[in-house]
Parts: sequence; C-alpha cells; structure tokens
Amino acid sequence: MVNDFDKSMMRRCFALANKAAGETSPNPLVGSVIVQNGKIIAEGHHRKTGEPHAEVEAINASQEDTKGATLYVNLEPCNHYGHTPPCTEAILKAEIVKVIVGMVDPDPRVSGKGIAALRSAGLEVIVGVEEADANELNEAFVHRIVYQRPFGILKYAMTLDGKIATTTGNSSWVSSSQSRHYVHRLRSTCDAVIVGGNTVRLDNPQLTTHQVSKNNPVRVVLSKTLSLPLSANIWQQQEAKTLIFTQADCDSVKLGYLLDYGLEIIQLSDLRPCEVMKALYRMGLNKVLWECGPTLSSAALKDGSIQKILAFIAPKLIGGTRAPSPIGDLGLQVMDDAIKLEKISLTQVGPDFLVEGYLSLGLK
Amino acid sequence: MVNDFDKSMMRRCFALANKAAGETSPNPLVGSVIVQNGKIIAEGHHRKTGEPHAEVEAINASQEDTKGATLYVNLEPCNHYGHTPPCTEAILKAEIVKVIVGMVDPDPRVSGKGIAALRSAGLEVIVGVEEADANELNEAFVHRIVYQRPFGILKYAMTLDGKIATTTGNSSWVSSSQSRHYVHRLRSTCDAVIVGGNTVRLDNPQLTTHQVSKNNPVRVVLSKTLSLPLSANIWQQQEAKTLIFTQADCDSVKLGYLLDYGLEIIQLSDLRPCEVMKALYRMGLNKVLWECGPTLSSAALKDGSIQKILAFIAPKLIGGTRAPSPIGDLGLQVMDDAIKLEKISLTQVGPDFLVEGYLSLGLK
Repeated sequence: MVNDFDKSMMRRCFALANKAAGETSPNPLVGSVIVQNGKIIAEGHHRKTGEPHAEVEAINASQEDTKGATLYVNLEPCNHYGHTPPCTEAILKAEIVKVIVGMVDPDPRVSGKGIAALRSAGLEVIVGVEEADANELNEAFVHRIVYQRPFGILKYAMTLDGKIATTTGNSSWVSSSQSRHYVHRLRSTCDAVIVGGNTVRLDNPQLTTHQVSKNNPVRVVLSKTLSLPLSANIWQQQEAKTLIFTQADCDSVKLGYLLDYGLEIIQLSDLRPCEVMKALYRMGLNKVLWECGPTLSSAALKDGSIQKILAFIAPKLIGGTRAPSPIGDLGLQVMDDAIKLEKISLTQVGPDFLVEGYLSLGLK
Repeated sequence: MVNDFDKSMMRRCFALANKAAGETSPNPLVGSVIVQNGKIIAEGHHRKTGEPHAEVEAINASQEDTKGATLYVNLEPCNHYGHTPPCTEAILKAEIVKVIVGMVDPDPRVSGKGIAALRSAGLEVIVGVEEADANELNEAFVHRIVYQRPFGILKYAMTLDGKIATTTGNSSWVSSSQSRHYVHRLRSTCDAVIVGGNTVRLDNPQLTTHQVSKNNPVRVVLSKTLSLPLSANIWQQQEAKTLIFTQADCDSVKLGYLLDYGLEIIQLSDLRPCEVMKALYRMGLNKVLWECGPTLSSAALKDGSIQKILAFIAPKLIGGTRAPSPIGDLGLQVMDDAIKLEKISLTQVGPDFLVEGYLSLGLK
C-alpha cells in the first residue's frame, strides 16, 4: 500500500527532477530518492542526455549501504542500453528490494519492460504514485514520445478587455513585472521560444531568461520572406542561440546578411508551424514556447502545434476596435465551435491572473 | 470594543439588507438586528422607499422588551423626517442603550447627525464595524449620493482570447449556463440594464431575470436614430418595463411605431451615456448594469458612466481578427495609459472566471 510518506518521497523526486528543467531534452525529467529505514540516504536526478539516469545518480551518491533499501523514481527505470547501461541492472546490483514508480515510461523501448524486469528479479514494484503530477511533470516528454512532436505552449498577455497591444501596436507592458519574471523563468524550462517576423519588427524582444537562469532556450523566428530588420536584439547570440525558419523563395539578399551574422537559417518548402515543429522534433526538442502574435498563434493552433495555453490577464482596460487580440482567424463562425480548454488552473501572479489550460484534442 | 459577535451581527444586518436588493432605490440597503442578553430578539430590513426603515422594522417586530438592548444597523440611523419619522426617535423610545453602526450615512441630511443625536441622548454608539463590507453593500447608494449619478457596472462575457462574439457576430453562448444564471440574479439587484441598438438587432435579448426573481430591472435601449427592429423580445413588457433613449432627430416614423407598442421613449438633444445616467438619476435609480457591446461600452467608460467592471472569462478560444472584443475605442495609444482597475476580485462561476474590479477614478 502507498502511504503519505511514499507520496512525499515521490514529490521529492519531482523537485529533484525539476532541477534540470529545460536541460534534459530529448530525455525526460527524472529524480530519484533512496530510503533506508524510513530515512533518505541518497538522492539523484538526470542532468542531461548522455549523463547518468537519476536512479544511477542516487545509487552512486549513496554513502550508506543500499542493501534492502527502497528506491523512488518518478519515471519507470529503463531496461535497455542507450547512452548509459540499464538502470534496472544498477538497481539489482545495489540490492534494492522495493521500487516505487510515479509513472510508466511511454518510450516503447521501456514501456513496462523495466518494471517487468525488476519484478521478475523478485523486487516489489509499486507503480502510479502521484501519477497525475508525474505525467504533468513530463507532459512535454510524453507528448514527444506519443506524437513525435515537441509539446507546444502558447503564451500571451492581454488586458482584461482582451487586447495584447494598443491600436498603434504598443505593448510595453501589458502584464506586470512579476508576470514578465514568471515568463523568464518559464523560458528557462523550455527548449525553444518561437516568434514571427512581426514580433521581431514591432517589439524587438530579447527572448532570453533575463539572467534568472543560464539555461536560455533557442530563439526561433519564423519568416516566409525574411523581411526582417537588419538590426534586432535577437541577432545577438552571446546569451542565446537564434534559429530562423524561412522558405526557399525568401529574400536572398537578406538571407546573405543574416547568414553573415552567424545565424542559423533553415529553408523549408512551405513554412508552416507543424513543419517547424517537425524539424524541432528531429533536433531533439521537447518543449516549445510560442510567444508569437495573432497571425502565427492562429496558424499554430489550427495545425496542431499548440497543446497548452498560458494566458496572463492584466487587470486593466485599453480598448481599441482594431487593437490586436491574442489569436487571429481560426475560421470559426459560431461560438459553439470554440476550442474548449480542459484542466484549467488559475494562479495569481502579482496583480495579474494566469489562466492555464490544455487543448481538448490529443493527449493533453 | 468590537468583538466577533458584533461582527457576526453586522453581517446578519448585511444579509437582511440584501433581501431587498434592487428594490429600495433611491434608498439604501439597510438591515437591523436587536440583541438582548446576547440573543437576537428582533430583525428588520428596509423593503422599499416609503416603507419603514430597518431599525423601525426591527423595533416593531420585537416580541420582547427592547429596554437596555443593543441595536445593530449597517447604515447610520436617520435623524430627520422624510417619508417616515426619524429612526433615532424610535430607538430612544425603545429604550435601546447601545447602537452599533456599519458606516456613516453619506446623505448630507444624515451624515453624522443621527450618531450625534443618539450620543447626546446618552446612548453608546460604535461606528465602523465591518465598514468596508458595509460600504460595498451600498456602493451604488453611496455613489448616487456623492456624485448625483447612478452607479454604473459594465458586464461582459468573453473567451480566453478576448472575444465577445465570432467574426460573424454569433455570441450564443460565450459563457456557461452558470454564468448566465449569475447574471440573471445580478439583474435582479439592479435598477436598470442598458444596451445599445446593436445588441437589440444582433442578439434580440430578453434582459430579464429569467424567473430567478420577480424584481426585473428597467430595460433601457440607447439608439440615436431608432433604427431598431419592429419585432424584438424587449418590446414585450409583461415581465419588465422597457425605456428607450433617443435623440430629437430620430426616425419619427419608427418613433410612432414604438410609441404605439406602449414603450416609453425619452428624446435627448445629445444621446450620450452620461446624459442617460443623469436622467436615470433623476428617476431615482441607484444601480445600472451596462450589458452593451463595444461601441457603447467605450463611450460609457470615456464619459464616466462606469464605476465597476464584471468580466466573465470562458475557458475557450474562438479567434477572429475582426471578431469583437468587449470595449471599443478609448483613444489610448500607449499601454501605460490603460485604465487600471482596483480592488480586484476573482470568483469561479461554473467553468468560467468572473473578474471584478473598480475604475480607479472617483470614489470606487
């Protein structure tokens, strides 16, 4: 049976796992705790691809005898040779007798085989402790495995009357400094942030974590024509890398300029959000933050590139019949056809409200 | 000193007062409780203008001796002859020795005089118990007294991407049945609901309490030209009265038709929200609910006719570059000039969020 102690140990695994948020892709976030006689004797977490898995980190970190101990881990231990040897072997070697697992690994190379291997070796294995939260912790990894695409999050900040900028395009700032700080931290947990050419032209953003973390996501710009400014904050790559997606028929002169800046540019035959997501998947990205304007956000929503919404709502009114709202044309004519969000949660961030929700289609 | 018992008695006064919400204008909402030896011996509330005040209701209702008792009332007792004799006289006659008051009456005919009269007669008077909530309970009445205008509330329902309808104008329904029920109850606490001609043409609403209360507010339509449909739900006045404000230069043929329906029509030289509010003030209204679209809501905001915002936010996305948002042009060019809201509160209503806030200008 699972008790409160087991749950609290699992939550400790989540906290350990989260230490490497944004750094493990394409791998999941995993933390592990070893308990002997009701006390934690070792902890570990997965730091990045190629480095030891969390279970092995914990076993190696232990100063005490692990014989007869219980190991907690938020994701099923692997039973195959990847960059590193199977975790199940290390667990058996450590003479651990009980393994408590948050969730089954959806990776077909694992997917129950790790649990089966431990059970057939005589260990007691409990699966599904704090399972909903274990799933949420690795929602991007799970989406990646199941759909062969990164997990897409659309983030926007709007006034209480639904505007992301004034009629003249001014948007600094819609949300509070606390909300902007929240976004800087959020970026550090993502593998990429995406904007369109309009955002570069109008807002000239940095799209970095603004020193809240050294872990800056790749900044991705989508521009069919490359009609982008020659000078822009994100062409500076000291803090973070920038990647431009464009089309084969883009402005070749501008292409030359931007290549001279040392920017990486990928030309697709058809620059659609889902094609960009496909390419980012192949690069090993798990979690992508769309911080774009209405034209790109509606295109990304329509072609399935968004799984989750993060809407910051500032308690102010700006008005403006032509002032932009966060999402452009979705082609929906009647309110009954609106995209319903699920698993809604609400957080107060400074004076603002943050509403989070998942698109009802797909896994999340 | 004020103790928890006193506070709970004051909250009982609020509950009693609220029984007549929407029915007392231009008078305030007032409830009163009489306590003898730590027990409630009588209660009363003000039902409508011309009927006894709450204190007198409570005194008259008492089956027990009020000598030496404590009287609680959320608003200062009056000390003047209006429709009814002064409450202070009734309190003295009842030989009550202590009076606990929520807030001073801002009405210049009272405004401290009632408290002074009781004190000079030797009674102990405590003022300001649960004062913030006492003020909120009568925020419309207070605004009326201080500004000689009804208190204006702008209510709208939008999607999480800031839209009140689709691109084609479809808006049934943005919010949930629970939110709509909430609005029906809200209407029963208001003296009038206001819409523009567009809302009548596009939505053909009832604007009644939909049987949640018999207390239907007056339905007010603003239309400069009277280019209104000949058939509309709100021309039916069995359940609720309808009042049309128009201009002197309106369509006289349409004017004739609408007058033939038995509708009351007021012609102003210039149909502006503040002029309508002035007229509604003169009619004795305290609390007016603006349920209009973006054109009228921005006009009402700009000319000071709105003091409070009630924004229902539904967890769904509809998109639409030209789909309407709740507020039209306010003439604001930079985000720093946005109208900040104060005293923000948030309630979950079914699946929706209700954000309430006050405009920072003025008393509220």
